[in-house]
Amino acid sequence: MPTDVLRDLLDGRWADLRRTSRELLATVEPAPPGDLESQRARTFEQLRLLADGGHALTGFPKAYGGADDVGGSVVAFEVLGFGDLSLMVKAGVQWGLFGGAVQALGTQDHHDRYLPGIMSLAIPGCFAMTETGHGSDVQHLRTTATYDAETREFVVNTPDRDARKDYIGNAARDGRMAVVFAQLVSGGEEHGVHALMVPLRDEHGQALPGVSIEDCGPKAGLNGVDNGRISFDHVRVPRTELLNRYGDVAEDGTYSSPIDGAGRRFFTMLGTLVRGRISVAGGAGSATKKALALAVRYGEERKQFTRPDGEEVVVLDYLAHQRKLLPALAKTYALHFAQEELVSALHDVQDDRGKREVESRAAGIKAVATWHATETIQVCREACGGAGYLAENLLPQLKADTDVFTTFEGDNTVLLQLVAKGLLTSYRDHVGDLDALGMVRFVADQFVGVAIERTAARAIIARLVSGGDDGLLERGWQLRQLEFRETHVLEGLARRLKRAGAGDAFEVFNAAQDHVLHAARAHVDRVVMEAFVAGVDRCSDPGVAELLGKVCDLYALSVIEGDRGWFLEHGGLTAAGSKGVTQAVNGLCGELRGRVGELVEGFGIPEVWMRVGMVG
Amino acid sequence: MPTDVLRDLLDGRWADLRRTSRELLATVEPAPPGDLESQRARTFEQLRLLADGGHALTGFPKAYGGADDVGGSVVAFEVLGFGDLSLMVKAGVQWGLFGGAVQALGTQDHHDRYLPGIMSLAIPGCFAMTETGHGSDVQHLRTTATYDAETREFVVNTPDRDARKDYIGNAARDGRMAVVFAQLVSGGEEHGVHALMVPLRDEHGQALPGVSIEDCGPKAGLNGVDNGRISFDHVRVPRTELLNRYGDVAEDGTYSSPIDGAGRRFFTMLGTLVRGRISVAGGAGSATKKALALAVRYGEERKQFTRPDGEEVVVLDYLAHQRKLLPALAKTYALHFAQEELVSALHDVQDDRGKREVESRAAGIKAVATWHATETIQVCREACGGAGYLAENLLPQLKADTDVFTTFEGDNTVLLQLVAKGLLTSYRDHVGDLDALGMVRFVADQFVGVAIERTAARAIIARLVSGGDDGLLERGWQLRQLEFRETHVLEGLARRLKRAGAGDAFEVFNAAQDHVLHAARAHVDRVVMEAFVAGVDRCSDPGVAELLGKVCDLYALSVIEGDRGWFLEHGGLTAAGSKGVTQAVNGLCGELRGRVGELVEGFGIPEVWMRVGMVG
Repeated sequence: MPTDVLRDLLDGRWADLRRTSRELLATVEPAPPGDLESQRARTFEQLRLLADGGHALTGFPKAYGGADDVGGSVVAFEVLGFGDLSLMVKAGVQWGLFGGAVQALGTQDHHDRYLPGIMSLAIPGCFAMTETGHGSDVQHLRTTATYDAETREFVVNTPDRDARKDYIGNAARDGRMAVVFAQLVSGGEEHGVHALMVPLRDEHGQALPGVSIEDCGPKAGLNGVDNGRISFDHVRVPRTELLNRYGDVAEDGTYSSPIDGAGRRFFTMLGTLVRGRISVAGGAGSATKKALALAVRYGEERKQFTRPDGEEVVVLDYLAHQRKLLPALAKTYALHFAQEELVSALHDVQDDRGKREVESRAAGIKAVATWHATETIQVCREACGGAGYLAENLLPQLKADTDVFTTFEGDNTVLLQLVAKGLLTSYRDHVGDLDALGMVRFVADQFVGVAIERTAARAIIARLVSGGDDGLLERGWQLRQLEFRETHVLEGLARRLKRAGAGDAFEVFNAAQDHVLHAARAHVDRVVMEAFVAGVDRCSDPGVAELLGKVCDLYALSVIEGDRGWFLEHGGLTAAGSKGVTQAVNGLCGELRGRVGELVEGFGIPEVWMRVGMVG
Repeated sequence: MPTDVLRDLLDGRWADLRRTSRELLATVEPAPPGDLESQRARTFEQLRLLADGGHALTGFPKAYGGADDVGGSVVAFEVLGFGDLSLMVKAGVQWGLFGGAVQALGTQDHHDRYLPGIMSLAIPGCFAMTETGHGSDVQHLRTTATYDAETREFVVNTPDRDARKDYIGNAARDGRMAVVFAQLVSGGEEHGVHALMVPLRDEHGQALPGVSIEDCGPKAGLNGVDNGRISFDHVRVPRTELLNRYGDVAEDGTYSSPIDGAGRRFFTMLGTLVRGRISVAGGAGSATKKALALAVRYGEERKQFTRPDGEEVVVLDYLAHQRKLLPALAKTYALHFAQEELVSALHDVQDDRGKREVESRAAGIKAVATWHATETIQVCREACGGAGYLAENLLPQLKADTDVFTTFEGDNTVLLQLVAKGLLTSYRDHVGDLDALGMVRFVADQFVGVAIERTAARAIIARLVSGGDDGLLERGWQLRQLEFRETHVLEGLARRLKRAGAGDAFEVFNAAQDHVLHAARAHVDRVVMEAFVAGVDRCSDPGVAELLGKVCDLYALSVIEGDRGWFLEHGGLTAAGSKGVTQAVNGLCGELRGRVGELVEGFGIPEVWMRVGMVG
């Protein structure tokens, strides 16, 4: 069956783990809607099912019974995206963010004391970074942790309402402890943002003295997750509660760190937490797949209006309906392969340069994948008409739950700027005196950029790019177009910034912000395309490879069509060529129409999570 | 104050009614969220407040205590869009759809018997048109109303599950009667779809014998509206319950109608219901305004990241943030004026040709305005980050409630095709033998097309179009561009259909469906632009007129920018000109940045419905 071949190909490197994760998820029954408290209670119970089923073990060290499988932990999270997204996010908060921070920023002592309880859910916890006043700009958080050498304690304090920890998952109901990010002060000196373990509640669930917790209340979605606001009124924790891998305070208050500079230190710490961002991209992918599978199943059954012979037309036979769903499906495939490649890189890469590249890719793919999820799920809802608006058909919950993905774990607009700044940094030779212009602040301050090169199947891409004709359906031509755009947009941006020269650096950079975002998008599109090409290349079944090749054509051409204004402006397409791209997209929609059912079945979504009234 | 001038200008022809409607809405207090039943109960109570406050009177005949103000009834509905959208939709179901159908399709006897109770809410009712199997294609509804001459009754029957009336507002909880659309059969002959009054529940709220009502259950939003599914098992109603303005059955079963042809008759009936579609466009506009006002207020307070001097930047000072909100704000202004013009036309037009034009415009503006609402509210949510995701900040409810607007009261994709088909019909001379090609079925069957000409301030538009230079900020150039596109796309489509010639008519038309939709969009964009130009022309305050002129520039140029691929393909823009449009949009964002607060305050949204935690 092509569907099985597709599923095996998509399952990829972590195929076994995907299978067991699907089986575990299928044991968690979808629950009927309830009020806020019952949704939260249910989600916590389901979280325990996951803990008992071994979900949490994957990413933690073998020393504590885990599998030490970093990539696998992201994949297991991604599979949860086929189920209840509150459960997915709650799992991500507990094991990915909270547990992940202890693991990445703490040392042996913290691991011994906390990891077993985190893994077993004996210690439900929070990742308390974001503040009311500082979400994207976390370097300027205002919670303080001031060392008191006399008592050998840190005093954790919230100076005002703007410095409350806000939107913190697990805070309103379940959290017992939190990893709290705060400006570290010792001996009157500031050392930048560090993380500490701070207890929040006693064993009866009562907030501890000095800790105030507010409930963020109902949200658009994800109401099984108990988000809250936390304030600390001079809460004291022992010195040893500082997660001290990247910065430590001796008993006498002396600060030490293996990394110079508060900024560089903090971004190194943040870098270790990149897994969360990659996980969100994966979860967004699963939700997108589910929405498409639902809309495709409906679109293959639903009929409306008649042909001249009186026969009713299946709505997926309409070009307009294909246009809604098929390019989105192609992009979902493309992003799947890009995600798989990113997870592999996260898992394998050890060197600093490689880590920086993973961070950049994570930022770009998270932004593109989550916007794609929001847009696609919206389109799927509309493609199912009134049925798509009923809760029983699952699309409303998918929409509501995934909406925040575009702004949490990094606001997408901010993330794309990080990507572009990384790319620009690699263009410094080009720009020359960027530093002298004061531009460096906007370019490299928050992000260590690297020249980002092809990583996916370098040989095949290089061969394709250099060879072949210039037909729209030539893979080489498609790759060259995306490469041409990326290079051209980035070079133009670098020249523009240089030209702007002596002006106010903020104004110069701000005036080019749309150009900056375009550079990032062009880069991510190329990276995603190369991953898709490499994925197709891995397929050994000729029939399925041919099918995927067409899906890849559709992805490439719909990306080009979507930005054809730019290609026309810059000589990448002639007017006739541009019209040809639109015709080719229409043609591919028609060619793929008959295969669309297989393409969504290949996602392997557990049927128990696909039960809807509108189909079947 | 410019804000007052703006508000008065926007209030326009029905300024007094807008003021009293705002005052009435402000007396309805926003209520906290609750479960499904409590939301429904609350919405029904609030509906009673509206009835008692005189909201319902506007659109009904003076003979029954109304004001006979058709346009005013749409405007009053639009104002409800600033408040709870469940209440707005429930009001629309009761007085617009249910009451409107009795008024438009019934005759004196029905008006006497039913209108007073409908207006006072003594008879809560449903508009039962859509069926599970037929939503857009309502001509093929399958519920039957078969006349029994012996008992002088109609037998209303649901043949199978696909023919259940579905998604019917007021059905699950409150409705006592329904206007039921069914295929009329008399003497063994079918006469097409007609509407009848059918009682649903007794005075205790129990479903009557033969009537089965299912609850559609929770939805993505609008959960204050009780949507349900209704089936009829040979339910008998007296002959006099047929709403017989456009078709009647005599006691002996003889059918008569002033209109020949079941199709033409049905679309005439549908035409009288166009007010509902226009109302949805207006409600979508109000919701969009509210979302923008919230996001702008937040964007003017929220700071994130610092300038080189250490000062934090207000997020609305970022070009990327302006790009998210300002073109959307400009389009919201444009659509406001287009809506006002459409409502005026609905109110004034008496002749058939004018009515057909109103129907076409209603279809186009409803589609464009509701998609604009969905997109803009999404962008506003994202522009408020995590705060935008909290229910207390209102954006989640706005998003969830308005989502269905794109597919109810006419699926947008279907509506745009109606617009294009209307335009094509007016091009018949051009196409010549369209009929001979069997194309006429797809072009004119469901819609009486008319040559659609400028209606807004013909003189000013004509003067502008014919004069002036070719600068991007020249109004004449902008108008010429949009006119050029509309004409060119439509002519190209007509030629393409003619060329396709002898092929299968469905296939030919389907292969051009993206072209068809583009033609409709180009048309609506031009109509909206002309209405905006006419609106600016009506402004007598020079300062405000200048401000609105810039907003109009931003609207025109962002429309052109959004489709610059097409303009480049077809010689409307050179590469340099196209880049210039992008620069001009950026420039206008910067120029309007300082006025954006006034622009949203001009909407005049009652403050009681704007209370949020994230601002102030």
